[in-house]
Amino acid sequence: MKLIKAIVRPEKTMDIISALYDAGFPAVTKMDVSGRGRQNAPKGSGTFDELPKDLLYIVCEDENKKTIIDIIMEKARTGEHGDGRIFVSDIESAYTISTGEEEL
Amino acid sequence: MKLIKAIVRPEKTMDIISALYDAGFPAVTKMDVSGRGRQNAPKGSGTFDELPKDLLYIVCEDENKKTIIDIIMEKARTGEHGDGRIFVSDIESAYTISTGEEEL
Amino acid sequence: MKLIKAIVRPEKTMDIISALYDAGFPAVTKMDVSGRGRQNAPKGSGTFDELPKDLLYIVCEDENKKTIIDIIMEKARTGEHGDGRIFVSDIESAYTISTGEEEL
Repeated sequence: MKLIKAIVRPEKTMDIISALYDAGFPAVTKMDVSGRGRQNAPKGSGTFDELPKDLLYIVCEDENKKTIIDIIMEKARTGEHGDGRIFVSDIESAYTISTGEEEL
Repeated sequence: MKLIKAIVRPEKTMDIISALYDAGFPAVTKMDVSGRGRQNAPKGSGTFDELPKDLLYIVCEDENKKTIIDIIMEKARTGEHGDGRIFVSDIESAYTISTGEEEL
Repeated sequence: MKLIKAIVRPEKTMDIISALYDAGFPAVTKMDVSGRGRQNAPKGSGTFDELPKDLLYIVCEDENKKTIIDIIMEKARTGEHGDGRIFVSDIESAYTISTGEEEL
């Protein structure tokens, strides 16, 4: 299984989530984060020149990774700096708490 | 080492943390997230039908993984949809900042 | 690629981010978390004796891992309990949304 983490513009989140749902991937966890990309310098005044972002967590089967990344890419992109990034890592195992079972 | 991420009902967090502490696992990081499980459809009005959840991060030795998962499973479960999920992934290395040392 | 997660004192965040920027690592994602270290007992009253922490996410090439960890260690440390921890894990792939390209 894979964990896909997407750091995106908050105004794009609903479009991404709706498109993922329509493609059969309803489960998403969202958290509010602050991001600074590779184009910004820190402010001299000691403040963090942060932009609010949403971090979306999606766990999927290996074979669905490309589909999900393509959906996020399409729905999250404006083409400007600040569109965010996607990171993929391995999940060793996953469990559904309500059933107590491991997801295979 | 393993990183255990548990997405749980916020009202279960204290029970989980207390049980982990009693079992010898005091260190937990908690963050507020919004989750949507596999049973929900997005709202047509464009709102994210989010439920507040807690995301708990626990880093452990490989041999303690099962004990910790079992504790979370027991304390987090109501048996209803929305109980959340647990994900396990590998940690390559961990460091304690106060001592400057790698944890082995 | 590596994902470096640092759980640090919020008052250290700006120093860490500035030092990372000066060393050529400008991209950071920050989230507000609550942490409990290994030295604290849960409060008997059922409250989570949480301390506010910042969780910093930095994605880097493998060869930059040590430099980044050293910077965080130096800037985040007071030497007291509560300085936080750093965790390193593998990233399988990363994508820049604005360009639609995989980062290699």
